[in-house]
Amino acid sequence: MEYSKGLAGVVAGETVVSQVQGDVGKLIYKGISIDTLASQSTFEESTYHALYGVLPTQAQLSVFRATMAANRALPVYIVEILKNLPKTMHPMGILQTLVSSLTGASTSASLSQVEQNIEQSISIIAKMGTMAAYASRHRKGLPFVEPKTDLSHAGNFLYMLSGVVPSAEMARIFDVALILHLDHDFNASTFTARVTSSTQASLNISIASAIGSLAGPLHGGANEKVLQMADEIGESSKAKQWVLDALAKKAKVNGFGHRVYKTMDPRAVILKGMLDTVVSAKPNKYYDILNIVHDTMIAELGKTSKDYIWPNVDFWSGALYNSLEIDTLDFTPIFTVSRVSGWCAHILEQWQDNRIFRPAAFYIGPDSAEYIPITAR
Amino acid sequence: MEYSKGLAGVVAGETVVSQVQGDVGKLIYKGISIDTLASQSTFEESTYHALYGVLPTQAQLSVFRATMAANRALPVYIVEILKNLPKTMHPMGILQTLVSSLTGASTSASLSQVEQNIEQSISIIAKMGTMAAYASRHRKGLPFVEPKTDLSHAGNFLYMLSGVVPSAEMARIFDVALILHLDHDFNASTFTARVTSSTQASLNISIASAIGSLAGPLHGGANEKVLQMADEIGESSKAKQWVLDALAKKAKVNGFGHRVYKTMDPRAVILKGMLDTVVSAKPNKYYDILNIVHDTMIAELGKTSKDYIWPNVDFWSGALYNSLEIDTLDFTPIFTVSRVSGWCAHILEQWQDNRIFRPAAFYIGPDSAEYIPITAR
Repeated sequence: MEYSKGLAGVVAGETVVSQVQGDVGKLIYKGISIDTLASQSTFEESTYHALYGVLPTQAQLSVFRATMAANRALPVYIVEILKNLPKTMHPMGILQTLVSSLTGASTSASLSQVEQNIEQSISIIAKMGTMAAYASRHRKGLPFVEPKTDLSHAGNFLYMLSGVVPSAEMARIFDVALILHLDHDFNASTFTARVTSSTQASLNISIASAIGSLAGPLHGGANEKVLQMADEIGESSKAKQWVLDALAKKAKVNGFGHRVYKTMDPRAVILKGMLDTVVSAKPNKYYDILNIVHDTMIAELGKTSKDYIWPNVDFWSGALYNSLEIDTLDFTPIFTVSRVSGWCAHILEQWQDNRIFRPAAFYIGPDSAEYIPITAR
Repeated sequence: MEYSKGLAGVVAGETVVSQVQGDVGKLIYKGISIDTLASQSTFEESTYHALYGVLPTQAQLSVFRATMAANRALPVYIVEILKNLPKTMHPMGILQTLVSSLTGASTSASLSQVEQNIEQSISIIAKMGTMAAYASRHRKGLPFVEPKTDLSHAGNFLYMLSGVVPSAEMARIFDVALILHLDHDFNASTFTARVTSSTQASLNISIASAIGSLAGPLHGGANEKVLQMADEIGESSKAKQWVLDALAKKAKVNGFGHRVYKTMDPRAVILKGMLDTVVSAKPNKYYDILNIVHDTMIAELGKTSKDYIWPNVDFWSGALYNSLEIDTLDFTPIFTVSRVSGWCAHILEQWQDNRIFRPAAFYIGPDSAEYIPITAR
């Protein structure tokens, strides 16, 4: 039977949340290019835009920021659960556990169902930063740093992670990284959020399911692998030959290629620009190696246009996070801190016009098999 | 754009685990009809069959039963997490939290990857019964009943739930109910298990995602709704008129209709037979009401063949569980105790020939939207 494995190219639904224009290397959130959002918006504003579908006025944004900040603290029992989890546990498993154990925040009965869903979304989005930072400190055996309400979502996250209030410049760089990862149409985790929520499971249970998909190394772990590759290369003088050898062996070079983009991933361009800025002030051990890998890949792949493959979002993000002194193990949780805004927007959209996801399976087993009694087997 | 909402009728992959033959009202697990399995097999044997693809010999089944039994106890930290969860939490949220917080069982390094995956599957399947029973007792504020190793999976579950070892007859009835719910091709939760595992997320994280989808009332909550309907009807003398009124209003009658079955759901037939047996010994307050609802529906719908709809698996299962003195809130966790075997089989199958699920989205938002500076909004 003919079918598309992994549902590649199969339309699974409609959305207004984002569009990946793979052919021209553009990504828009409800019509606005991420280039514009990265240069002019904030994570809070972009989240508001994703949830409400419009940009906020100054007054609306002030209220939204304050609501986000007020929702950062975790319930006591969630912190107790975290303390019970093994320190060696995969941080994405920790996030899944904690989000799953959130019961819905109590909402005002005077709100409409959509307004209540938005309120729940804000609560989860706000807490995701706290959960990711606490999970990191739990792993390291460090005391938790309680959230501050007078910092941006990005700045507060870096503060809870390290215990030090970041510079405005570093907070803004991280803020832009969060904007860039906020949504990307029907990737595996967003699709999971839509499938689970299509059964009318609750918002936090649906988000926990989505976290499960982002936990997989084929989805959320790619920027970790780029740094592992750079570690394996070891020094910049060996980078070019390493790439040539990898290409000769037809081995995978991490951070290159994407199922949707057929040209430069626009997020990679912005991340690279920020990495350049950061490195000009403070050296990064991965920077030279990755630049040579990048240039060698482009030069080599450019010789045969059909194999022309550009770096994706994961190629530079790991090095950038490394410059922000973030552990490699926290990269996928950070992806979650951003993408949860997109997941919530997709779930709200799914519920506006829902039908449960129940695809067909093509059965390739035997039509009939005999049940031989156990004494005769 | 033309697309199938909810992916109805769209083939999302191949499977040998089960086939729903909706036109003829048949369900087979790897070629063997569930009628045969319900009359001759056990949940443990059917689980072995799902995981290994063959029926076990007597010796293999003995080892498998013993391994299942040995894996029932929960790690201490999981019990501590459960104790921290609010008693009011949705029991499926509790199951998702606990499964997510399981770290992989340590497996022997001498095993192949597939063998390790099966070992992990057995550990999760065995523990699901314990988690569901403990979640029930946690909700009721009762002390946990530690698993016995000398009972069947079904019998031990009923024992952990009530604290009383069930009769052989009741244990067998529950065992058959577990067999009947073990798999059902690409329903929403199984599909979720496949999507999440396609990212190479771990087995327990993928199962936690699937639990999220089963938590939704459109998927896992249907048998609860049948009993709620019976409660609303109140007494058998009012049942016929209630159905006629519902049909006149075109209101939904719970427990009728299925996206796949176009005739009697074979599981409903078996469940009804067991319910008849149980009720002959001990009255059930739902029995007469449901029989009248059933007969009225068949008689009325039978008048217009295009609306001919048969009862599905959920119509009788709730009443049967009620006769087994199981709380309505535990129905969906029980569904999980059974379906986890199917989920594991599907995940193992997904990993044999994996491609990440990444469907396409049809963007219906604006092509371009202006970013008006906040001071001008």
